[in-house]
Amino acid sequence: MESRGWSQLWLDYESKFAASGVANGTERKIVIECSDFDRNNRVIKSAVSELNRAFADATKEVKISFVRNEKIAAQGYKVGNIIGGSLNKPQDGDGFIIEASDENGLLYGTFHLIREKLMGRDYPDISVSCAPSNPLRMMNHWDNMDGSIERGYSGRSFFYANDEIIVDDRTVDYARFMASIGINGIVINNVNVKWAATDLITTRFFDKVKELSDIFEDYGIKLYLSLNFAAPIELGGLPICDPLDEQVKQWWKNKIKEVYDHLPNLGGFLVKADSEGRPGPFTYGRTQADGANMLGDIIAPYGGIIIWRCFVYNCTQDWRDTKTDRARAGYDYFKGLDGQYHDNVILQIKNGPMDFQIREPISPLLGGLTQTNQMLEVQIAQEYTGHQIDLCYLIPMFKEILGFKTYCKSDNDTVADVVSGRTMGNKLAGMAAVINTGNDYNWTGNDLAAANLYGFGRLSFDTELSAEEIAREWVKLTFNLEQELEDKLVDMLLRSREIYEKYTSPLGIGWMVTPGDHYGPSVDGYEYSRWGTYHRADHLGLGVDRTDKGTGYAQQYYPQNAEMYNDPHKCPENLLLFFHHIPYTWKLSSGQSLIQYIYDSHFEGYEEARKLADEWKSFEGKVPERAYNCISHRFDLQVNNAHEWCDQVNSYFYRKSGIADEKGREIF
Amino acid sequence: MESRGWSQLWLDYESKFAASGVANGTERKIVIECSDFDRNNRVIKSAVSELNRAFADATKEVKISFVRNEKIAAQGYKVGNIIGGSLNKPQDGDGFIIEASDENGLLYGTFHLIREKLMGRDYPDISVSCAPSNPLRMMNHWDNMDGSIERGYSGRSFFYANDEIIVDDRTVDYARFMASIGINGIVINNVNVKWAATDLITTRFFDKVKELSDIFEDYGIKLYLSLNFAAPIELGGLPICDPLDEQVKQWWKNKIKEVYDHLPNLGGFLVKADSEGRPGPFTYGRTQADGANMLGDIIAPYGGIIIWRCFVYNCTQDWRDTKTDRARAGYDYFKGLDGQYHDNVILQIKNGPMDFQIREPISPLLGGLTQTNQMLEVQIAQEYTGHQIDLCYLIPMFKEILGFKTYCKSDNDTVADVVSGRTMGNKLAGMAAVINTGNDYNWTGNDLAAANLYGFGRLSFDTELSAEEIAREWVKLTFNLEQELEDKLVDMLLRSREIYEKYTSPLGIGWMVTPGDHYGPSVDGYEYSRWGTYHRADHLGLGVDRTDKGTGYAQQYYPQNAEMYNDPHKCPENLLLFFHHIPYTWKLSSGQSLIQYIYDSHFEGYEEARKLADEWKSFEGKVPERAYNCISHRFDLQVNNAHEWCDQVNSYFYRKSGIADEKGREIF
Repeated sequence: MESRGWSQLWLDYESKFAASGVANGTERKIVIECSDFDRNNRVIKSAVSELNRAFADATKEVKISFVRNEKIAAQGYKVGNIIGGSLNKPQDGDGFIIEASDENGLLYGTFHLIREKLMGRDYPDISVSCAPSNPLRMMNHWDNMDGSIERGYSGRSFFYANDEIIVDDRTVDYARFMASIGINGIVINNVNVKWAATDLITTRFFDKVKELSDIFEDYGIKLYLSLNFAAPIELGGLPICDPLDEQVKQWWKNKIKEVYDHLPNLGGFLVKADSEGRPGPFTYGRTQADGANMLGDIIAPYGGIIIWRCFVYNCTQDWRDTKTDRARAGYDYFKGLDGQYHDNVILQIKNGPMDFQIREPISPLLGGLTQTNQMLEVQIAQEYTGHQIDLCYLIPMFKEILGFKTYCKSDNDTVADVVSGRTMGNKLAGMAAVINTGNDYNWTGNDLAAANLYGFGRLSFDTELSAEEIAREWVKLTFNLEQELEDKLVDMLLRSREIYEKYTSPLGIGWMVTPGDHYGPSVDGYEYSRWGTYHRADHLGLGVDRTDKGTGYAQQYYPQNAEMYNDPHKCPENLLLFFHHIPYTWKLSSGQSLIQYIYDSHFEGYEEARKLADEWKSFEGKVPERAYNCISHRFDLQVNNAHEWCDQVNSYFYRKSGIADEKGREIF
Repeated sequence: MESRGWSQLWLDYESKFAASGVANGTERKIVIECSDFDRNNRVIKSAVSELNRAFADATKEVKISFVRNEKIAAQGYKVGNIIGGSLNKPQDGDGFIIEASDENGLLYGTFHLIREKLMGRDYPDISVSCAPSNPLRMMNHWDNMDGSIERGYSGRSFFYANDEIIVDDRTVDYARFMASIGINGIVINNVNVKWAATDLITTRFFDKVKELSDIFEDYGIKLYLSLNFAAPIELGGLPICDPLDEQVKQWWKNKIKEVYDHLPNLGGFLVKADSEGRPGPFTYGRTQADGANMLGDIIAPYGGIIIWRCFVYNCTQDWRDTKTDRARAGYDYFKGLDGQYHDNVILQIKNGPMDFQIREPISPLLGGLTQTNQMLEVQIAQEYTGHQIDLCYLIPMFKEILGFKTYCKSDNDTVADVVSGRTMGNKLAGMAAVINTGNDYNWTGNDLAAANLYGFGRLSFDTELSAEEIAREWVKLTFNLEQELEDKLVDMLLRSREIYEKYTSPLGIGWMVTPGDHYGPSVDGYEYSRWGTYHRADHLGLGVDRTDKGTGYAQQYYPQNAEMYNDPHKCPENLLLFFHHIPYTWKLSSGQSLIQYIYDSHFEGYEEARKLADEWKSFEGKVPERAYNCISHRFDLQVNNAHEWCDQVNSYFYRKSGIADEKGREIF
């Protein structure tokens, strides 16, 4: 165990050197040519520093040239071994060239080269060029200043403790890791801005935020803050925070000037308004655009942006009310304002219309908005997908999301096109993830959950990468496995999302989780609640009718999708219960009845979870003991969880339907 | 509003004087003759002080004589107006006599006289004698030293804040109120003894506990402490707390000597062992008797007693397991040890086998044990009965409990007989309530919940009092109402328990509450949990088979009761689902089917809750505004709660059974 309290994730040079039999402390033989870039630039310095660490095992001199190439897109790079040579066993004079038009590109090219080296690709495919798919590639921290993390499953915050900001060596490592996967923006505080976090835009915290911001800047990352829309009241002592009130605007003008005086590199603000009890423009009869534009106009002179979340819905619904549909809310609130948002405002839209379930349709706002900057929000914190206890590699889900054809145009109409800015030619576009980190030794609670952290960054940088490519990269970088085990682990990752889906809520209905906590089953846990998340199961069937005869949600899509979702015979079966109320006796394409599918998938999911746990046993002695034990313990918990899900869901539906399992398995 | 921060409950002399038109500050004209008792005795001093306050409105001289009468039972009294005269309008020389064989009896007689006066009985029926039904009449506080109260619905603790003990004027008033209803023992800390509370038996807190104990002693009340069975480990640094280990015994010997050196008037200890995660003798393969007797033997020389709770069950049950039955646990664990407990040990037994539900059968341990000291535990903190939001006057329930014929003997076999010691001639016997107080102005959250506080004390002193008599006393003492409203309020109280039962869980099945919190409905909330509290509803019926064909729980009763409970045709219908799994189509004696009964009772309960709220409106201006508003607000909440219960339970069973309401009312 290293003396520091955290792992090096996919940049664990020492472990790689050890695996290849190289002694530590070898004299560095790296020579960097850097005539095109300013060697004193902070980002260039970081690139040089990282190369020195990554090539510390080189026994011969390696030459690396930084070349400016204005033809390369912003933040993109080309990497080549034009000088010739091997990454891991260089001869004297061997070398590599990294081209970019800017420093960020240079840094990303550097990490590309390092990845190749760490993956052991000795004569690697490094004659590549790569431009980032998305201009904005962001992480959203839901860290609170008391050190807790909303939906955090990896320990406490490494940014905060006891209402103070922490800046230490871990902060630097964190920035390195984020840059290494292409992240260029980080929101450091929870979107629910309360208590001390409201003071992040005051002199109480400016100095420490500036220290963080400087570290981020070293790695080409902009720091963003989540904003309390009621700050004019809470900080300014004003009676209101009406975005059209002159006093309020003046307060924000002064405040944002003050902020930029202290934090000149600040990227901007993320705002959750009028959602789940947060203040917002609705209080004053103003629109979401009124709120966002007011802040956008004020921040524009500083080059800042306003990221406005679209997670607005009625969270005090009466469960008896079958007309109101939470799924409709985003589109209903935001579509009508399309075109009214100013240029430096961007809407951040969750991938689905509900809330990060294991299976949801794509939010109809994505592409539904055609004249508004928009970015995709996903959640790698496994709130509803197993709390970083259960294995759930999410990149396959994100690939599905990005590949979804919206029909908003005749071409370039996938979600990937929309959120990258390709569809509409926006400059402000991208992807954000609610991050899954904490101060655990392994950063992500379950070591394997780091695949989602790594994967989101890589995918946001290059949406063409496949889920398998990303998984394989991460496995190669993280562990030192023989081929068979590498293949096995990649396979486990790739199967994991479907397994989790099988033993939890069926066919897109979602929820059925323990209220509040969101881990483990409670089929009726949200059924009679205020949250708008119902399965509507009765003795004949279940599912929510969101067709034109029901809540009409399906009509929020472009016609091709609307027709598909509206018809239970055309609707993708994995979303059947999201869109339709279906009898238990309904025949699925497999020939199974719905109820039999529920039984079968749950028994299978539980069985497959046990298989995962069993497969993991073959990694004993092949990965670091600490990781092995941590993951083993979590697989044990996952098996228990899958068991509970399986038996509770099956028992619930058996008791409700009275229809026995065809295969006569034990249901309680 | 008085300047003090708490009300005077049923001893509100000022309000009574004001209601009868007497000015405050009238010169006291009371003369107390006290030749038989020591005027300097602390209890006698309290009696004198209380009489002075209560007769402060007297315009003529009133003479009161304290007379020792050794023929009167311990703590009993006689009160007479043998000198003649009126309580509220005395003539010079009018007077009263209070006889007792001890100081406590004298004090209780004093309060009897005062009650009569406050109730406005001018020439009252005060030629009475009364001996307490129960030797022990106790309140159990579940107050924690951080100031929180486990299952507290009336604010924070008035005993503790921030791990310190509070002693102030409120403490004195609390002791007065408790003495006025006959309470003679108070456990001041939560049975779950953790953190700072473990230190209550150390020098850290002795001084302050002694101050509390002294105040209690002024009012004839003994202070008791809940004990951490693991104290030898946590305080003593021993590796174990095995009750048969010599080192452990020696530690307790020293500790208890130390405790009595500092707290010579301590009544003894209450122990929750081997329950819900608490430590206990089971850890060491010892019996509950081993644990209790060890402590009992050590405390005996000091005159102390050990009160040992019987709330022991498996709280990590698998919901799939239909053989294990939590209801059986108390009897299974304790019956086999009958006769093994030492003389100064008493078992404290919850009224039902589960946990303070709105309707449960009587614990078969009560009377099932025939050679063991035993006392009844009830809960006036409304954990499962409406959180002191919903009106639920519990004395009718306690009367049913006390009146239950156990058949443990040919006569004197009711629960009242058993727990008073009459059945077996025990000296150690009685009743305890988990108290419903906190530091709210009105002490009990809902002003009307004070009827349970008052009622429990009065009932434990005189189990022959009817629920109506007690309700009327409390109403007369607390408010100054005209007859019609007094009758109405008494009637509301008397109906309230049945109303609450109607809109919550039906026919004795219990639970169906929000997990953890226990307020509001969640039909399946505990159905798939580890707590052993299931309703086993499926599409055909519900209820738990506890007959000889099921878990066999019914067989724990004496034959007459066992036969009754075992047969669904003989079983009292209000307990039908506790003992039997019954189809929805089962015909009840009313002719209703079970499912129709569920629908009807829930609609009725909701309707009746609305009626209660409506009736309360007629009290506006007739009770203090503060109380009126507080109670009105709670009735509003109760109506919402009843609405949720009604709709959720009905919808749940409609969705599950598919059987429509015969009356076509709206079910969701």
